[in-house]
Amino acid sequence: MLRVNYFASVCSISLRASRVAEATARPRGFSSSVARNKQSLVILGSGWGGYEVLRGVDKKRWDVTMLSASGYFNFTPLLAGCAVGTLEFRCAVEPVRRYTPQVTAYQAWCDSIDFKQKTLQCMPATPPLTFEKAVAPIEEITPTGGLSHFAGTGTGFTQRYDKLVIAVGAYAQTFNVPGVKAHAHFLKDVRDARRIRTRILECFEQANQPTLSDVERRNLLNFCIVGGGPTGVEFAAELHDLLHSDIRRHYPSLAAMAKINLYDVAPNILGTFDRSLASYAEQSFRRDGISIRTNHHVEKVEKGKMFVKEQGEVAFGLLVWSTGLAPNPLITSISQLAKDEKTSSLLTDDNLNVITKDGGMPDPDVWAIGDAAVMQDQRLPATAQVANQKAKYIVKKLNKIAKGQNSTKPFEFHNQGSLAYVGDWKAIYDRSGAENVKTKESGRLAWLLWRSAYFTQTLSLRNKILVPTYW
Amino acid sequence: MLRVNYFASVCSISLRASRVAEATARPRGFSSSVARNKQSLVILGSGWGGYEVLRGVDKKRWDVTMLSASGYFNFTPLLAGCAVGTLEFRCAVEPVRRYTPQVTAYQAWCDSIDFKQKTLQCMPATPPLTFEKAVAPIEEITPTGGLSHFAGTGTGFTQRYDKLVIAVGAYAQTFNVPGVKAHAHFLKDVRDARRIRTRILECFEQANQPTLSDVERRNLLNFCIVGGGPTGVEFAAELHDLLHSDIRRHYPSLAAMAKINLYDVAPNILGTFDRSLASYAEQSFRRDGISIRTNHHVEKVEKGKMFVKEQGEVAFGLLVWSTGLAPNPLITSISQLAKDEKTSSLLTDDNLNVITKDGGMPDPDVWAIGDAAVMQDQRLPATAQVANQKAKYIVKKLNKIAKGQNSTKPFEFHNQGSLAYVGDWKAIYDRSGAENVKTKESGRLAWLLWRSAYFTQTLSLRNKILVPTYW
Repeated sequence: MLRVNYFASVCSISLRASRVAEATARPRGFSSSVARNKQSLVILGSGWGGYEVLRGVDKKRWDVTMLSASGYFNFTPLLAGCAVGTLEFRCAVEPVRRYTPQVTAYQAWCDSIDFKQKTLQCMPATPPLTFEKAVAPIEEITPTGGLSHFAGTGTGFTQRYDKLVIAVGAYAQTFNVPGVKAHAHFLKDVRDARRIRTRILECFEQANQPTLSDVERRNLLNFCIVGGGPTGVEFAAELHDLLHSDIRRHYPSLAAMAKINLYDVAPNILGTFDRSLASYAEQSFRRDGISIRTNHHVEKVEKGKMFVKEQGEVAFGLLVWSTGLAPNPLITSISQLAKDEKTSSLLTDDNLNVITKDGGMPDPDVWAIGDAAVMQDQRLPATAQVANQKAKYIVKKLNKIAKGQNSTKPFEFHNQGSLAYVGDWKAIYDRSGAENVKTKESGRLAWLLWRSAYFTQTLSLRNKILVPTYW
Repeated sequence: MLRVNYFASVCSISLRASRVAEATARPRGFSSSVARNKQSLVILGSGWGGYEVLRGVDKKRWDVTMLSASGYFNFTPLLAGCAVGTLEFRCAVEPVRRYTPQVTAYQAWCDSIDFKQKTLQCMPATPPLTFEKAVAPIEEITPTGGLSHFAGTGTGFTQRYDKLVIAVGAYAQTFNVPGVKAHAHFLKDVRDARRIRTRILECFEQANQPTLSDVERRNLLNFCIVGGGPTGVEFAAELHDLLHSDIRRHYPSLAAMAKINLYDVAPNILGTFDRSLASYAEQSFRRDGISIRTNHHVEKVEKGKMFVKEQGEVAFGLLVWSTGLAPNPLITSISQLAKDEKTSSLLTDDNLNVITKDGGMPDPDVWAIGDAAVMQDQRLPATAQVANQKAKYIVKKLNKIAKGQNSTKPFEFHNQGSLAYVGDWKAIYDRSGAENVKTKESGRLAWLLWRSAYFTQTLSLRNKILVPTYW
C-alpha cells in the first residue's frame, strides 16, 4: 500500500524530482533500511503549530520533512522584549536544525500543493546562487523588512508526502492602507524585532545630532503603534519601560521629547480581553503618558509620516503595525479545499482534517492547524495557544497512526486564559473564558503569571537557562 | 587663556556652528557652571585607542566629546568567535553611550581638521533624515558590508576642541585587487562578524537544497580566507571548530564536503610570530585538514569565485579578507602634518603628539594613537596592545594636565607578547619579544593564557559575567 503510493507519485512528477529523491535520500542514507518502512510526514511551517508537531512527533516511526522559509521557530511572546533590547534575539528563536539529521529540513517555501498526487511544489528560500538568475520576489523587498522574502534560487523542487500538516500561518494585515509595507514595521519575526531595535536606537542617535531643531527631534522621537491588540499593547509597554530606564539614563534631554501613541480603529484597545481588564490596561497606559488614540483611522503612510483621518499629518520616527492577520499566499493558491468565508483560512473538521470543496469530504492525510486554519464547527481565536494545542493533538494522532491504532477522538480546546504585559512590571491575565475558573488578575501578580507561563512553555532547556540571565 | 581660545575658534566658524554650540550645550545644561571651567577634549574614534581614553580620562576635569561613526567599541579578539556563533554579538561590543550624559557623544564622522582654528568638520553617520537628500557615501555600499557607511544626513556640523586625540584607526587593505570590497567580507567590526555568521549558515542551507549537484555543493562549502595574520588564522581556527561540532552534528553529509583554505602571498603564515610557533600553527592546521596556500596571489574576485595566479579560478561560498591595514580617509585628508612614508600614518614624537610638516614641531594639543599613528623614533606594530598602552599613557597625561601638573615623560611600550588561537582549544603564545621573559607556549596552556588574557582586558563587568555563559 505504502509502496504503491510512493511510486504513483514519483512516476507522475518531472525529471527534476528524481534528482530530488536522490538528493534527499543521501543525507539519510545511513538509515535507509529503516526509512523504507516509514511513511513520509511533511510539515509546512515552523511556527507555534508546525514546530510543536516537529518537536513532538515520533521521529523513529515517521520519516519527517520540515519545510520552513525562515528555518526557525519564533517564540512570539518574547519578540516585543527583543525589539526593545531586554532580551537577546537568540532567546526568542529555536532553529529547526536542532532536529536534523533525525529529520530532513529545507529552508524553502511551498508554492502549491497537489492533493491528488500528494506532491508539493517548493522553492528554496535561500538567496539565489551565483549562476542563477533571481526570480521576482513574492512581495517587494521593503526597507522595513515587511513581508518580503528572498527571491528564491529560481530552481524549484518537488516534495512528496504520505501525510501533510499545513501550518504556514498568516501574513500581517494592512487593510490595503497605502505605504504600510514600505514604511511600517511588523512584529511577527525575530528579524522584525531586530530591525525595530536598530531603528529605535537610530532615532535617538539621529535626534542627538547637533544640527537638528527641537521640532525635528520631537518628530523623530514620536513612536506610533497601529493596532491595539496584545502585540501592539505589549510593544507599547516594553517601549515605555525602555524610554524610562536606559534611554532616560543615557539620553536624558531627548527622553523627555519622546512620545508613544497607540492607534486603533475600535473604540477600545484589547477588544478580545474582559472589559474590566482592558480598562485597567488603558488606565495604566494613560498614567504612563502613552496616548491611546482609539476610533482613529490611518489612511496613508509615507516615509516618516502618516495621514490620520482624525488628526491629519502625523510625523513619526518609528511606526509599528499590528492590525491582525491576512491570508497566507499558499492558502490563497489552494482552490480544491473548503475555506472560511470571513478569514479565507482552510476549514477543518473536528479531527483537524481539511475538507474538499467538492463533496465536503475530509482528506484523511492532510491536517491544517494554526492561523491558516479554522474549525468549521468551533470558531477559536487565532492565537499561539490554540495553534499549540492543535499541534499537540496532531502529534498524539500521528503517533497512534504510526502504531496502527485508531484515532478519531475530536480536538477539544482547553482555554488557559489570555495574558498581556502592560508595562512597569505589571500584566493583565484574563481567565474569564478559561475552563472551570473565573479569575481575572491585574498588576504584579498577573505579571508573575505572565512571565512564569511563558517560561514553562516550549523553550528548550538552553533557553530556559539563558533567558533569566538577560533580565 | 582658555576663554581666548574658545572665542577665537567660535568667531572663525560659520553660522551653523553657533547652532551646534546651542545644541551641544543643552544636554549638559545641568552642569554648565562647572563646564565653563573645563577644557574641551575631543576623542576621534572608539576603538582600542579612543575607547580606552574615553574610559580612563577624568570626566570631572575634562569636557569630553566622543565622535564615533559606529557608536561602540569592538572587542576585536572576540570577533572571530562571534562570526562562527560561539559568542553573542553583544559580548564583543561596548557602546560609548555607557558614558553619556557624563560625556557628549555623536555618531558622526570627522571629515577634516583645522589645526589652526582647532575645529573639526563632522558629518552625522546616522541615516539621512526624511527631509534630507542623501549625499554620496565615501565608499560604495557593498553586499558584504565592506568599508561602506551611511551616506550621512547631508548636514554637517563643526566641533571645536582644546585638546584632540586622533584614534580613527585604519581601513582594511585590499591592495587594489578588483572585486574585494564588493564580494569579500572583512572582519574588523561586529557587523562584519554578523554578516559572516549569516553567510556561513546560508552556505549550508543553500547547499542543503535538493536541487544542487555535489559540485555546486562543494563550491558553496569552499571557505577561503586571504591573509595569514592573526585575524585570518583565528577565523580559520574558529571556523574549523564550528565545522567539526555543530555543523557536523546537524549537516553530517554536507560537513564532509566543506573545506577551509588559508591564502597568503608570503612563504609563511603568522609572519610576526616566532618561527617555531608559526610552524606549530601550520602543522596543527594541516592535521586539521585546513589547506595552507602560502606563496599564492589572488588577482581578482567576482561573485562566488576568485582568480588565483597559481591555481586559476577558485569557487567559494564565503571569502574573508584580512591582509592588513590601509590608511583612514581622514588621515589621507590631512596635509599639514608629518606622515610615515611606508604606512601613511601620522608621525608622532615620543609624547605621542603629532608633528607639523613645516618646521617639524609637535602640536602640544593634538595626540595620535592606534593604527592611524606611528612614533617617529620607535616603530611598534599596529596592534590592539600598542593602541591600548598608548591610550593609557594619554589618559595619565590628560589627567595630569587637568591638574596643572607637568607631564613630558615619553611613552614606553611594555611588550606583553602575542597570542593567537589555532583551533581545537589550542593557542600559541609568543613572549619571545616580551620584556625580561623568553617564553614561547603552544597548545592547551597557551589557550588558557589566550582566554584568560582577554577576559581580564577591557570588558566591563556585565560582559565578564556574560561571556562564559555562552561558551
